[in-house]
Amino acid sequence: MMNVRGRSLQKTPSSGLSMVAQLFGITAIVLMLVWLLHYGKGFDLNSNDPTRIFNLHPLLMFCGFIFMAGEAMMVYRTVKVGRPALKLIHMTFQLIALGLGVVGIYAAFKFHKEIHLSHMTSLHAWIGIATYGLFLLQFLFGLPMVVKSRPDGEISLPWHVCFGRMLFYMAICTAISGLMQKQVVLKLKMCPENSLINFTAAAILLFGIAVELSISLPRFV
Amino acid sequence: MMNVRGRSLQKTPSSGLSMVAQLFGITAIVLMLVWLLHYGKGFDLNSNDPTRIFNLHPLLMFCGFIFMAGEAMMVYRTVKVGRPALKLIHMTFQLIALGLGVVGIYAAFKFHKEIHLSHMTSLHAWIGIATYGLFLLQFLFGLPMVVKSRPDGEISLPWHVCFGRMLFYMAICTAISGLMQKQVVLKLKMCPENSLINFTAAAILLFGIAVELSISLPRFV
Repeated sequence: MMNVRGRSLQKTPSSGLSMVAQLFGITAIVLMLVWLLHYGKGFDLNSNDPTRIFNLHPLLMFCGFIFMAGEAMMVYRTVKVGRPALKLIHMTFQLIALGLGVVGIYAAFKFHKEIHLSHMTSLHAWIGIATYGLFLLQFLFGLPMVVKSRPDGEISLPWHVCFGRMLFYMAICTAISGLMQKQVVLKLKMCPENSLINFTAAAILLFGIAVELSISLPRFV
Repeated sequence: MMNVRGRSLQKTPSSGLSMVAQLFGITAIVLMLVWLLHYGKGFDLNSNDPTRIFNLHPLLMFCGFIFMAGEAMMVYRTVKVGRPALKLIHMTFQLIALGLGVVGIYAAFKFHKEIHLSHMTSLHAWIGIATYGLFLLQFLFGLPMVVKSRPDGEISLPWHVCFGRMLFYMAICTAISGLMQKQVVLKLKMCPENSLINFTAAAILLFGIAVELSISLPRFV
């Protein structure tokens, strides 16, 4: 099994790092579910309770958008099939991420409307919407690479990878800022819910770092 | 001028990216100064006004700690002197970053004490203190590399670089979460100060991305 630069994947530490990333990602999902189901009131897009509408936002943005995008980025390290199939899996995962992400963003807008809050004021919203917009562009510009043959793809591939890593960086920053915002809005201080949000944020950050290192480590080490 | 893998720096896009990073970094510093001096009440560690004590925290943590650390990381791309001198400059910049950082953290703790707030509750505080602690360890483990000859350094250098990139990632996330926290605490909505904080956060994020790409791009492109 070789990666694009012809290195053997078995000889790099990136496969192990992908496993570590999965572990942090799943930990973050579990912690977030405990937070939203135990301390929150669950989630429902058509609820009369604005909190249940809002709760879909962190759920879909991390467990949907960011986790799926991370999995899509690591697919070249984790799944051992031929390159054309890998490209298709990568694209499908990113498409699912985009789909879940747009529902997650809609949930936030619907929540703002229900409680008469202005849209797009916080820095979380600014960075988030910029990330989603650029991610959509990255997806569209990446589409031709799915069908193109290897020598053609090689030219734009490094830029696609670097731009993707940059967007993933932005997505993690957005997630952390969103949890921070919610923590202050909920006026949480020294209580179990506060620590739960802190641990969720730590798991998300570590997921981001592990995904990033699993992509970049073979180039450095 | 060659980097550690023997690539010519002139042939990589990283020198240009370092310039872009400087631009974003200086923009962030200017925006932050406008925020703290025009909308805030300036800064003074020994003031009777807790706000003036607090204001030293974002100033020193970004303009001191993060900006200096970024400059230290990029020194191998931006300064054209021999490798032993580069190592010394890198170490000195990181030492300044650590020094300014510890005063910045002290300012936050002093502010909390003044207004009787509990320490270390928010996720900003958790991620921030973890970043600073690991940064200190990274500095101590990096010290022998300043005096060691090239072949010795080569073994641990890639790990030093990767760990440094990871910590810088964490530092940027911490900065964004800190600004987010302040924005909610100040209850800012649609006002110039709110947009100013958003633009500052955007400039910090772009500084982080540009520094990261200037380090990693030559390995990818």
